[in-house]
Amino acid sequence: MGIFKFMTPEIIFGINSLSQIGESMLRLGAKKVFIVSDPGIVNTGWVELAIQYLEDCKLNYCLWAGATPNPKDYEVEKGVDAYRESGCNAVIGIGGGSAIDAAKAIALLATNGGTIHQYEGVDLITRPLPPMVMVPTTAGSGAEVSQFSIIVDSKRKVKMTIISKSLIPDIAIIDPQTLMTKDARLTANTGMDALTHAIESYISLAATPLTEEYSLQAIRLITKYLRPSVASQHNREAKEAMAMASLQAGIAFSNAILGAVHAMSHQLGGLLDLPHGEVNATLLPYVLEYNLISSPEKYKNIAAAFGENVNGLSLTEAARLAIKAVKELASDIGIPNSLSNVNLKEEQLDFLSHNAVHDACMITNPRDMEASDVKMLFRKALGSEC
Amino acid sequence: MGIFKFMTPEIIFGINSLSQIGESMLRLGAKKVFIVSDPGIVNTGWVELAIQYLEDCKLNYCLWAGATPNPKDYEVEKGVDAYRESGCNAVIGIGGGSAIDAAKAIALLATNGGTIHQYEGVDLITRPLPPMVMVPTTAGSGAEVSQFSIIVDSKRKVKMTIISKSLIPDIAIIDPQTLMTKDARLTANTGMDALTHAIESYISLAATPLTEEYSLQAIRLITKYLRPSVASQHNREAKEAMAMASLQAGIAFSNAILGAVHAMSHQLGGLLDLPHGEVNATLLPYVLEYNLISSPEKYKNIAAAFGENVNGLSLTEAARLAIKAVKELASDIGIPNSLSNVNLKEEQLDFLSHNAVHDACMITNPRDMEASDVKMLFRKALGSEC
Repeated sequence: MGIFKFMTPEIIFGINSLSQIGESMLRLGAKKVFIVSDPGIVNTGWVELAIQYLEDCKLNYCLWAGATPNPKDYEVEKGVDAYRESGCNAVIGIGGGSAIDAAKAIALLATNGGTIHQYEGVDLITRPLPPMVMVPTTAGSGAEVSQFSIIVDSKRKVKMTIISKSLIPDIAIIDPQTLMTKDARLTANTGMDALTHAIESYISLAATPLTEEYSLQAIRLITKYLRPSVASQHNREAKEAMAMASLQAGIAFSNAILGAVHAMSHQLGGLLDLPHGEVNATLLPYVLEYNLISSPEKYKNIAAAFGENVNGLSLTEAARLAIKAVKELASDIGIPNSLSNVNLKEEQLDFLSHNAVHDACMITNPRDMEASDVKMLFRKALGSEC
Repeated sequence: MGIFKFMTPEIIFGINSLSQIGESMLRLGAKKVFIVSDPGIVNTGWVELAIQYLEDCKLNYCLWAGATPNPKDYEVEKGVDAYRESGCNAVIGIGGGSAIDAAKAIALLATNGGTIHQYEGVDLITRPLPPMVMVPTTAGSGAEVSQFSIIVDSKRKVKMTIISKSLIPDIAIIDPQTLMTKDARLTANTGMDALTHAIESYISLAATPLTEEYSLQAIRLITKYLRPSVASQHNREAKEAMAMASLQAGIAFSNAILGAVHAMSHQLGGLLDLPHGEVNATLLPYVLEYNLISSPEKYKNIAAAFGENVNGLSLTEAARLAIKAVKELASDIGIPNSLSNVNLKEEQLDFLSHNAVHDACMITNPRDMEASDVKMLFRKALGSEC
């Protein structure tokens, strides 16, 4: 084991924890709060409720609901302009990973200046960000605890991965109640995103004892609670468990980073604006097949965390049960088993594969990958080589 | 599950991680660093090495090696005077729990003023502390990540428990190399302290999914690595594992708090200046017997984490194996199985028991305790009712 670092925000978790948002902002020295969200979340009423809690604490605010799925560079620029005009000194993000990533990017530019493209990569942020509190509403992205922000470069049509400790929010408020307004498809996609975080962080080259326990526990929770959570918006126990799974997977991947699934899905998402969780979920079994020889012991532990009976099996047989369990869960909740419906042309594969190899998430993938390996996996996932 | 909070410092872990101390202090804005340690640690050379790393970063420092085991209020006062005279603006603690707790108390008074007694209890600190980096050298106390500082009130002869998020250091640097200068007895005592943290935090009323995984993993590491760590100063694998176990137990108990073992040992330590880890270890089986009916399922999980075979046993039988495993480990590494050598008089038991019931750690003990229950347990541990 070499030297490693580990960091999380302060975490406030539980039904009704949103009620602590005003006090949390006061503690961080907020005078006027810039709220980043999206129109869908505003419609659910959670933003209105957060505003009430801010007003109870005599805090002023400015609401900017301009985030969209796979947030774009030009949206972030508009958000920063709005932040500067607003006279705010603190940022709240309420929503899924997209709203939270947009909130982080706005906070980043607010104090560091320039354009968001300058910060693509690792550790390029030099000045402290304004105080940030993040409120996830999807149980999937883990963005509320992570040191990542993913923003689409709209000209190059790629997702830029920005990694820095400065992007870790000051406080993450995780209120499982907010999951009760998600529809089944979003619940399935974001739940599988959390599963992908748990698995990729667990087999990551940068996994540590502080992340591995959370990765495995997230898998245990997801295998038990994702199906019932997709089945009903009102299953409180399942929502609490999925919120915890997403949180644990988020802490794990923020510190252990991810792998080839994310490196590949960032490219598809950037090019075609596809739902991030669903693309991850579809790619996951293909990448797991490829990565298996790197860490069969870990695959066996994943299979056991899924509740598979690994007794008496060879290591490879046990390891394969991890992939089987992923496929069964995905199938049960309606995740497509291939990218055959994605409008992708053969001639785009070289561009995607080249970019995937250079994505920051590829560095920690447990098996080396050339562009040709990525292309082969994209082909398999497209159904052209299955 | 109600609303809960979870917080850790930034963690830097690994052999040679001490080399990052200068850069860490610079990041926190340190100009001149006040180093708190004790003469024993200074003799090992670790303080000198830390000073070299600070000098490499052009940082000035002032060394104050006035901490003693079970640090006293008057020592803290001397330390604060030295801090004020030194012109320092940041604090490093290097040593066991005593040096680190003293460092925290000095940092607390440096910006909050008054006497340390004013802060006994929960959340009584109002102003931010100077930047703090803590370097544990014992793999036991967990003070490098905790929101606790324990200081002896020398007049009342009790340990004061001070709990506040403000006491969580900014950065914890955990370098397992520093464990290679501990003797066998200190290794045994501090390792059992870590075990007590793991077990008490796991059965605590305030345990959460974010703490439980770390508690159990700490137990798994301790049952495998504490014996070889006591056996040899030079077993690098065992030192790394014990450093990780202590860290995980520390994160767990800082967020889930502790129980009756600590509530009782604080009293004995305050009155008689006894080694904290050893007293905890001796009390642990007696308190576990008492607490068993509160959470037999959790005891069963503890037994399994110790590697006990719980298959086919009744719940109570399985739970009892946890106590058996604790006793065997303690016996193997030379921990006394009673307090019979402690110079305690019958007439002191009422005072100790009364104070234990009002210790902050008693609130989260999983079974209710009156002073008479505590007195009964002290008697058993003294061998007068065994």
